[in-house]
Amino acid sequence: MATISRRAQQMPPSPIRKLVPYAEAAKSKGIRVYHLNIGQPDIPTPKEMLDAYSNHGLQVLEYSHSGGIWEYRENLAAYYRQFGIQVTREQILVTTGGSEAIIFTMMTLMDPGDEVIIPEPFYTNYNGFAVEAGVRVVPITCKAEDGFRLPSDEAIRSRITSRTRAILICNPNNPTGYVYTDDELERLRRIVLEYDLFLIADEVYREFVYDGAVHRSVLTLEGLEDRTVVVDSVSKRYSACGARVGCLVTRNAEVLEAALKFGQARLSPPTLDQMAANAALQAPQSYLQEVIEEYRRRRDVVFDALSRIPGVFGLKPRGAFYTIVKLPVDDADAFATWLLRDFNDQGETIMLAPANGFYATPGLGKDEVRIAFVLNVDAMKRSMEILARALEQYPGRK
Amino acid sequence: MATISRRAQQMPPSPIRKLVPYAEAAKSKGIRVYHLNIGQPDIPTPKEMLDAYSNHGLQVLEYSHSGGIWEYRENLAAYYRQFGIQVTREQILVTTGGSEAIIFTMMTLMDPGDEVIIPEPFYTNYNGFAVEAGVRVVPITCKAEDGFRLPSDEAIRSRITSRTRAILICNPNNPTGYVYTDDELERLRRIVLEYDLFLIADEVYREFVYDGAVHRSVLTLEGLEDRTVVVDSVSKRYSACGARVGCLVTRNAEVLEAALKFGQARLSPPTLDQMAANAALQAPQSYLQEVIEEYRRRRDVVFDALSRIPGVFGLKPRGAFYTIVKLPVDDADAFATWLLRDFNDQGETIMLAPANGFYATPGLGKDEVRIAFVLNVDAMKRSMEILARALEQYPGRK
Repeated sequence: MATISRRAQQMPPSPIRKLVPYAEAAKSKGIRVYHLNIGQPDIPTPKEMLDAYSNHGLQVLEYSHSGGIWEYRENLAAYYRQFGIQVTREQILVTTGGSEAIIFTMMTLMDPGDEVIIPEPFYTNYNGFAVEAGVRVVPITCKAEDGFRLPSDEAIRSRITSRTRAILICNPNNPTGYVYTDDELERLRRIVLEYDLFLIADEVYREFVYDGAVHRSVLTLEGLEDRTVVVDSVSKRYSACGARVGCLVTRNAEVLEAALKFGQARLSPPTLDQMAANAALQAPQSYLQEVIEEYRRRRDVVFDALSRIPGVFGLKPRGAFYTIVKLPVDDADAFATWLLRDFNDQGETIMLAPANGFYATPGLGKDEVRIAFVLNVDAMKRSMEILARALEQYPGRK
Repeated sequence: MATISRRAQQMPPSPIRKLVPYAEAAKSKGIRVYHLNIGQPDIPTPKEMLDAYSNHGLQVLEYSHSGGIWEYRENLAAYYRQFGIQVTREQILVTTGGSEAIIFTMMTLMDPGDEVIIPEPFYTNYNGFAVEAGVRVVPITCKAEDGFRLPSDEAIRSRITSRTRAILICNPNNPTGYVYTDDELERLRRIVLEYDLFLIADEVYREFVYDGAVHRSVLTLEGLEDRTVVVDSVSKRYSACGARVGCLVTRNAEVLEAALKFGQARLSPPTLDQMAANAALQAPQSYLQEVIEEYRRRRDVVFDALSRIPGVFGLKPRGAFYTIVKLPVDDADAFATWLLRDFNDQGETIMLAPANGFYATPGLGKDEVRIAFVLNVDAMKRSMEILARALEQYPGRK
């Protein structure tokens, strides 16, 4: 009987897939569920961007250039220059979300059977893209107790084989909130040069740094001009996840040209969404400043609350809007299920993302969850109260 | 030195890639170029669709469900029922353009090294998607002199191997304009059952049939309920190529569920574009009727003109808005280049797509071009006049 491919069978399910029916059942019983499990912010999209859709003035909604609207690329180049990243519009390929930028990067740099090294825990969808590209993800483990710093050079070197083509970091990191230091980037720079690799950085959370942390783009690393690819997206920056506009940035002309061929096959990124993303670049500085300040407040509320829950361990992240937290439970998956299926506090509960799905090494992250700071301060505060009460009552508590 | 993957090197360039610099050079000399080479229609997008963007009313541009907005899927199911295609919203996966529907279908049904049989000439980007999926395209040749009918059962059977997983047709066909008959679909039905294959149909030109031709969806073929996948798109139907909204339709729940996992990895199709595509379904019947009538007029203008050019051979297509035409030249690629580089008629010329790029079998299509009826009647008329004069003057004429 004709059936689905092995590749499709290998596609990892979403880490929260098993929880969704329980969340739906809880809601159908009238229970309010606070979603701390997803990266869908509640922050308003900039007015400039929303207005661009309203005032489109188009008669025919045409394809754009396969590499993106030139004016948008021009303005993106100017945006990058604000961060000391010297790129031209020709070095930018607009993609359908950051997701497509990752797939294009993997397919451009790697053949089936090739390997990419990724610090774990990592954004789970990297696994799915790797399956699509036939690429093997080789994790290097970062530990909560080390604040998710990169492990030693030796630990990294030990994972490099003849099939290794690249190291991929997410910086600031989803799901840990970690911001890589200059020293760590310098270590990666040396290893990449030594082993003739590419360094890919998912920098979609570039602006989301707190407590004076400074994000440094891999595009500013000396000697790596031909070896760095940055993946970017407007999704989080402008709370515009539904626009599906991202980009791939590289100074390696051969890589950009090859990636463009994948872009030509799918014709173009969405046209009006690119026009809107272009308009978002005109949003005042105050927009992002306020958004970052809002995320910082939420983070502080979460960590203030977490620090008072016995047995809970997490380090205040300095970037992005996620954190990985160790809970006093044996199985965070079971706890997350219990929260939805068996628990509520005055008709309310929370949905968490069990962290094992963010690790490639089996068994890791079993007692950890990812919390996304995507709800307002009051909702985050109430969510932490629910978490505290739930841990008091959870029968599986350690 | 780190370099691009073999896969990226295998990605086929666009068939008109070599022509683009010549077209740009011609334009910079003030020459007007009529673009008959692309599938970008000049038809206005329905007002209902354009207004949906203007009146979005959103504050936060969120992800949609990875499988698409449920209300849109509900309305799509109703749309299909108008054609006697009985599907439910659960059998529809909204994709980022028809392109993504094809990639998801290939990845879901085929592993690297598997084969898909496609009648040639075919839409060139199938080649690119096949490279991405690691799938081998096995062509079955359809000939202009046979009106691009399917070849015999024996010719089809002879291309089936142990790695064949599916037959993919584009119906109505891009680039030939051919509309498959009930008899041909019945033949494919039997072969698919006999060899335990899937039948994939790209039906994005469903409505574009002329002269009383009737398009039949593979979803209506008996006994193939578990074996058919339809790829669809709003791009041509509503002249909304830039929306990047398509879908994959199948009654095979296992296939749909597997395809959704690819969809979950990339999070969601563009949200507002789906809302707009949903609004387009509310466009009055007269919109599509007028569009189809307009394409018919353009086709007639083209064929009326072509029939009077000595040495030119083409059959009036009964569907879509393309046609493959044999020209009295040895090398259509050279002719298309000459048109842009060396020729103009009163400051005007035309850009054609050489047809060899639409064939997988080397050497085929060398004296053929694809013409797209994407310009208005006057522009098409003038373009054919330019073609006639060019063929009179072309030094390489046979």
